[in-house]
Amino acid sequence: MLLTGHLADRLADSLSTALPELATRTAQPDRLSAEDAAWADSYVGRTVPTNLARSGVRWVHVPAAGVERVVTNLPSGIMLTRTIGSMPRSIGGYVLAQLLAHRWRLRDYAAHQSDARWQPLPVGRVGGRSVVVLGTGEIGSGVGRVLRSAGYRVVGVNTRGTPAADFDDVAALADVDLSSCLALVNALPLTPATDGLIGASVLDRLRDAVVINVGRGSTIVTEDLRAALEAGSVARAVLDVFEAEPLPAEDWRWRHPLVVVTPHVSGPTYPEDVVEAIVECYQAFAAGLRPPHTADLGRGY
Amino acid sequence: MLLTGHLADRLADSLSTALPELATRTAQPDRLSAEDAAWADSYVGRTVPTNLARSGVRWVHVPAAGVERVVTNLPSGIMLTRTIGSMPRSIGGYVLAQLLAHRWRLRDYAAHQSDARWQPLPVGRVGGRSVVVLGTGEIGSGVGRVLRSAGYRVVGVNTRGTPAADFDDVAALADVDLSSCLALVNALPLTPATDGLIGASVLDRLRDAVVINVGRGSTIVTEDLRAALEAGSVARAVLDVFEAEPLPAEDWRWRHPLVVVTPHVSGPTYPEDVVEAIVECYQAFAAGLRPPHTADLGRGY
Repeated sequence: MLLTGHLADRLADSLSTALPELATRTAQPDRLSAEDAAWADSYVGRTVPTNLARSGVRWVHVPAAGVERVVTNLPSGIMLTRTIGSMPRSIGGYVLAQLLAHRWRLRDYAAHQSDARWQPLPVGRVGGRSVVVLGTGEIGSGVGRVLRSAGYRVVGVNTRGTPAADFDDVAALADVDLSSCLALVNALPLTPATDGLIGASVLDRLRDAVVINVGRGSTIVTEDLRAALEAGSVARAVLDVFEAEPLPAEDWRWRHPLVVVTPHVSGPTYPEDVVEAIVECYQAFAAGLRPPHTADLGRGY
Repeated sequence: MLLTGHLADRLADSLSTALPELATRTAQPDRLSAEDAAWADSYVGRTVPTNLARSGVRWVHVPAAGVERVVTNLPSGIMLTRTIGSMPRSIGGYVLAQLLAHRWRLRDYAAHQSDARWQPLPVGRVGGRSVVVLGTGEIGSGVGRVLRSAGYRVVGVNTRGTPAADFDDVAALADVDLSSCLALVNALPLTPATDGLIGASVLDRLRDAVVINVGRGSTIVTEDLRAALEAGSVARAVLDVFEAEPLPAEDWRWRHPLVVVTPHVSGPTYPEDVVEAIVECYQAFAAGLRPPHTADLGRGY
């Protein structure tokens, strides 16, 4: 197994204990050496080496939940798996933190504090409004679980409105009531079908709602979001992911008073989660089973 | 019933519907007119008029949870009740919001955002550490309920370590493990026994913990808190209540980078909660029962 990226050494170390029969090497992610290409049958990384097709690699594992940069370049006949681990719970916690910070106006009070200004602000009573979560897969379901535990009513959105366990209700995007929701959370993977999905036609249906993006940046049409903030359909945008990261310093989102920017921190990849996922997949392969968290190459995630 | 304070008119209006047999007047809180003093048998306010003892009033209701400014001045033979309503849930939500904001370093990211700085910061994995809540009464139990729903282990503290339903464990202050707790939350009423209770002897037992005060300001010894912030036993102090409010502009707490100041907003008094409490107490009196939320004058809350 070839290991790439900044976690490679830590993964090699942990795997030598967890799977002593597995031989590992660390490698550069861009292009495999001729020797590595011939030697390896599996590969761990966030991108695909240019010469992967002409190697012995038959399994690629991504140390993250999002696989969009691998899917589009993956040669046929290669199994793709990804890391979920604690990510759904972590991302759910991030969404809850941001919803509560919005409700309690913590940014406003932080600004007041720097002026030594004592000024209680009105807050609405909790209750009545739902949180709508786009995506009912592993990440979206994690968001649903955390928010429901904290007392929110959570409506999931997927392509056909197929029921899912961790939501009070599930609907298709065309059918969900966006006009009364407290927040719209994007937990979708990036695929051709989700790229630009959240544009004016969705944002204009909101009324004074918080938009939280923990999926991928390109799912939201940035200029439409800007217009929706001006129009008031979006009360605040909390953005943890961007179409290009790091977000360039000149981008308007850093400076907009109703935009909260965090640097892609809602679902950190912990080395132990990656090791656990690799071990689970490896053991499933060895037993002739389909490994967990396999990406569906046809759907793109 | 005499009604005082900024809610008086709204309370009178709601009570005329909820208890049409109850006659109400609005009055000034400092001193009752001779006519009001002779007419009234009950009084609603946050303080006690100077001539209450020489009036017909036998029941005082406080439109808040804290009654320390009434208890010390209340003539004998007068029943004292208070408003709880949605306050335990609200204060629990505030504590959860502040704990999550701390964990997710939202203040740090807000500061980075103003510099357009993309810099992921380390966060610990959740789990392992408990939240200790001082006070297992109605407010403390509300905090326990909210935090446990969100997945925290919560240890309550009361005088004798008497078990309470909404906590994973309850101990006396001398016995509770403060060295490993994530946060120490003060939800105690202000009484002679709690005034200055959280001083160096308590704070020095903490290790890198968040201190959150949603009880009363005087329970924490301010200069000892400052020393604990310098020493690192307290990682952050979140203060919603102060020994004098508004907090004076020159106070060091406004400007300390590890102190979060909010202007006494964690447990707002909603008029409907006050009306509901008055109605419950009135009906209990009428039925010859002890009203709910009666203050214990001997204990001072």
